[in-house]
Amino acid sequence: MDVHELARRVASGERASLARLITLVESRRAQDRRQAAAVAQLLRGAGVAHRIGISGPPGAGKSTLIESLGVAMCEAGHRVAVLAVDPSSRRTGGALLGDQARMTRLSQWPSAFVRPTASGATLGGVHLRTADVVEVLEAVGFDRILVETVGVGQSEVEVLHAVDTLLLLALPGSGDELQGIKRGIVEAADVLWVNKADGATASLAHVAQRQWLAALQLQRPRVAGWQVPVLAGSAREGTGLTDLLGALAAHRAHLETTGTWKEQRRAQRRHRVAAGVRDAVWSRFLAEPTHAASVDAALAASEDESVPVEFLVSEVLSSD
Amino acid sequence: MDVHELARRVASGERASLARLITLVESRRAQDRRQAAAVAQLLRGAGVAHRIGISGPPGAGKSTLIESLGVAMCEAGHRVAVLAVDPSSRRTGGALLGDQARMTRLSQWPSAFVRPTASGATLGGVHLRTADVVEVLEAVGFDRILVETVGVGQSEVEVLHAVDTLLLLALPGSGDELQGIKRGIVEAADVLWVNKADGATASLAHVAQRQWLAALQLQRPRVAGWQVPVLAGSAREGTGLTDLLGALAAHRAHLETTGTWKEQRRAQRRHRVAAGVRDAVWSRFLAEPTHAASVDAALAASEDESVPVEFLVSEVLSSD
Repeated sequence: MDVHELARRVASGERASLARLITLVESRRAQDRRQAAAVAQLLRGAGVAHRIGISGPPGAGKSTLIESLGVAMCEAGHRVAVLAVDPSSRRTGGALLGDQARMTRLSQWPSAFVRPTASGATLGGVHLRTADVVEVLEAVGFDRILVETVGVGQSEVEVLHAVDTLLLLALPGSGDELQGIKRGIVEAADVLWVNKADGATASLAHVAQRQWLAALQLQRPRVAGWQVPVLAGSAREGTGLTDLLGALAAHRAHLETTGTWKEQRRAQRRHRVAAGVRDAVWSRFLAEPTHAASVDAALAASEDESVPVEFLVSEVLSSD
Repeated sequence: MDVHELARRVASGERASLARLITLVESRRAQDRRQAAAVAQLLRGAGVAHRIGISGPPGAGKSTLIESLGVAMCEAGHRVAVLAVDPSSRRTGGALLGDQARMTRLSQWPSAFVRPTASGATLGGVHLRTADVVEVLEAVGFDRILVETVGVGQSEVEVLHAVDTLLLLALPGSGDELQGIKRGIVEAADVLWVNKADGATASLAHVAQRQWLAALQLQRPRVAGWQVPVLAGSAREGTGLTDLLGALAAHRAHLETTGTWKEQRRAQRRHRVAAGVRDAVWSRFLAEPTHAASVDAALAASEDESVPVEFLVSEVLSSD
């Protein structure tokens, strides 16, 4: 399809065309991605979105919270896009169509768009694309973009380059609720929410809230002058959501008044350009079959400890 | 100097020639590094060293412990090399010549070699070189190689690719002693030592020891079947060192009997080859002035949020 035609259809609100555009952004083919970029550039100018990362261990209730937040945002007149980048979703059976099916309340809103992880996107390369998809969603006119991650692995750290605010979910209980969450994510959190403050786990959630508060006070804040709020509530019952929405809005306001908002986005784009060029140079190198073969040969030869690594590296380069 | 002549001098135990060889390994010039690799290959065959990383926050007493461990190892008949890779040493005034001066007891041993951080090595690129230097020290015949790091930053995680055993130092006290240490380092620790179990801090050290023991039991061990021992002692007074030496030896024995020793070294070399080739491809790309200029131009252009990152990346590549 022609770039202008695709842009027109996306702008008119066609879900299928938007999904198609995102598939182009996530494509392994540079040609597809450039086409998507051209569409995004045509659409650009719709305003600035609040990009919110939502991280936390499996079972913390991320999907439920995202749906509740998304519905509340739609009710307040926002256009909400949800992007799941959970790379483990296929193993845990969490996300994908499951998520979309579970987010039935949110999906009914005409102003909401729920994007499950593309089936091919779990095999590497997705990290950098996430930020590109977020940028396209913003260009298309969504003003609240929720990006879900699982808080483990390198891809989650990469999400930090795609969002303005990071909301970290924790479970009720003590001590081991940090297990499985990368410390880098905890250090990067802007707002912390202890979920499942309901029923039998209500008192445990408040114990966890106090512990997190104590733990985070020892931590140097990522953004100067911002003390990470530690909230507790129930995504399932909808309690505490108003406070959470307030904390997210307060963080955005803090970023804007301190000038950190623009500075952070600028740094994110510089990072993405630098990493993207490096990746592209490497991909182009490997695309040459003789190069790929000599890298494989060097890796095989590395088994022999008597050969210095430096030799193996220089041999690959000298094969040109 | 001729490669064979340099190898001969290093093999005869000339300190100045060894220092020169290491400088070649750490050089930014690929030509120097290949020369060093040729020397290392000539010397190879002296045996297998135990490579021990020693990590911990500033002020934990790493230098003091390394000197005490080194002297004990020399007394037991080993040849000991110490390598400091503390990138913050120049700021904190810790390492460099300071370290060498402080390690006077160890430096007096003819079988010991203390290498302060090379002055130029702090400016990037040092991460991969550390493993190369360790390999050279092993080729030269040192059978105990102690690599010091500060437990913060990316370079410390890279040290994991250079050592067999990671010893993590902690300070007496509770809770905040983890501050400043990357979680990745804690997860990678094979032996934990609470230092300064002496004088006024003795009881606090034992409190910390119990807390670490509890914390580490929640953690999945890096090496199957190995429960991280948590020891306390005083590097300054030399108490607990026998237990520590025993724990380090036990870890090596565990790696060897489970086959993990070779497997780990193999994985480390594969990682170094892969990362080395990637770095070399990137360096070669940037060495072209027009490439460097187009990367700079793309970074500058990234300020304009209306231009998709994909365009900026593809423009750099198309400048060829």
